[in-house]
Amino acid sequence: MAGPGATLRAMTSSPRGRRPGSPDTRAQILDAARSLFADRGFGGTTIRAIGAEAGVDPALVHHYFGSKDDLFMSALELPVDPRTVLAPVVAAGVDGAGERLLRTFLGIWDDPVNQQRFIGLFRRVIEPDGGRLLSDGFVPVVLGPVGQALGIDHPEVRMPLVASQMIGLILTRYVLRVEPLAGMPAEQVVATYAPTIQRFLTDPLPA
Amino acid sequence: MAGPGATLRAMTSSPRGRRPGSPDTRAQILDAARSLFADRGFGGTTIRAIGAEAGVDPALVHHYFGSKDDLFMSALELPVDPRTVLAPVVAAGVDGAGERLLRTFLGIWDDPVNQQRFIGLFRRVIEPDGGRLLSDGFVPVVLGPVGQALGIDHPEVRMPLVASQMIGLILTRYVLRVEPLAGMPAEQVVATYAPTIQRFLTDPLPA
Repeated sequence: MAGPGATLRAMTSSPRGRRPGSPDTRAQILDAARSLFADRGFGGTTIRAIGAEAGVDPALVHHYFGSKDDLFMSALELPVDPRTVLAPVVAAGVDGAGERLLRTFLGIWDDPVNQQRFIGLFRRVIEPDGGRLLSDGFVPVVLGPVGQALGIDHPEVRMPLVASQMIGLILTRYVLRVEPLAGMPAEQVVATYAPTIQRFLTDPLPA
Repeated sequence: MAGPGATLRAMTSSPRGRRPGSPDTRAQILDAARSLFADRGFGGTTIRAIGAEAGVDPALVHHYFGSKDDLFMSALELPVDPRTVLAPVVAAGVDGAGERLLRTFLGIWDDPVNQQRFIGLFRRVIEPDGGRLLSDGFVPVVLGPVGQALGIDHPEVRMPLVASQMIGLILTRYVLRVEPLAGMPAEQVVATYAPTIQRFLTDPLPA
């Protein structure tokens, strides 16, 4: 029986960045990942289990998709990786992070092409079982690391508070298109919500 | 041809509060109202059009359901009428209204029976065409009057901002059940969000 290394080697004849191998294999792995993330949550899913579900060696899963975090982001099919986009926001420190977070967020969401794809994801998140995608996936993979990198206390409390306002803003401005939010210039939205996001990030939490 | 008055009189042999007449007629009117509110929005729908759609006299619509606002609330099938529940919040004035609004809101949503029915409505609101239910219905019928009664400036801007946080809180706490929000004691939720709601109600709006 060929070990993971052999399988991996067999697939590495073309450069990694060019997504080598059969598109069917990639699609099978993604399907398996989505199914398991949905059933068991992000924390309850292993690369090994995804490989078994897809009928491929776990090393091949890593080879195609990188880490489990990376695979989770691939499974979401976002137009941009929020971890990449948020890196400069985080690097500039916690002062004014609420404002920068909103500006970055709106810069992506206000783009009509991105918006269509994000709305697709958003609809999956708000389906009856979508809570898990957020709680057990998006929070630990994206929001948690942002909170930790910002060096705030209690990121496990503060980042869900931030999410609660961001989600409400997405729904009213982009999905339900409630005026005046839908047509409000981005900088006015930033100025309107920045104090809330900053307060959730840095003000003392109620007991 | 019998006029509206005659039709109305014909239906008033039993007391109003006991919902006289055929249950089918009530259901037909409700179906017609839901269909037209969905197609034309609250503002674009008349009692006359609802009557025509249901095949009954407009006076009968008024007789069964009261005003157009009342009919809209009936069509939503809420466990409580938010206008009734919010009346004492509004009566106590704008100081501390954010905190009182949240406490009232949580008092209703934290009740498991209410929660199930509200989540049903909430899912309709966040469907692709649900924006209209909020923008052209819930905002003018419930939120607008609350803002006006509180005497705040620009209620047409401020109340949608309030809604954007309330909706995000509903989604994260009750629908997606994201921790720690899902399990947080009500008074802690009130203390966490009250400054945001109060700020949206009374702080200067960004230009």
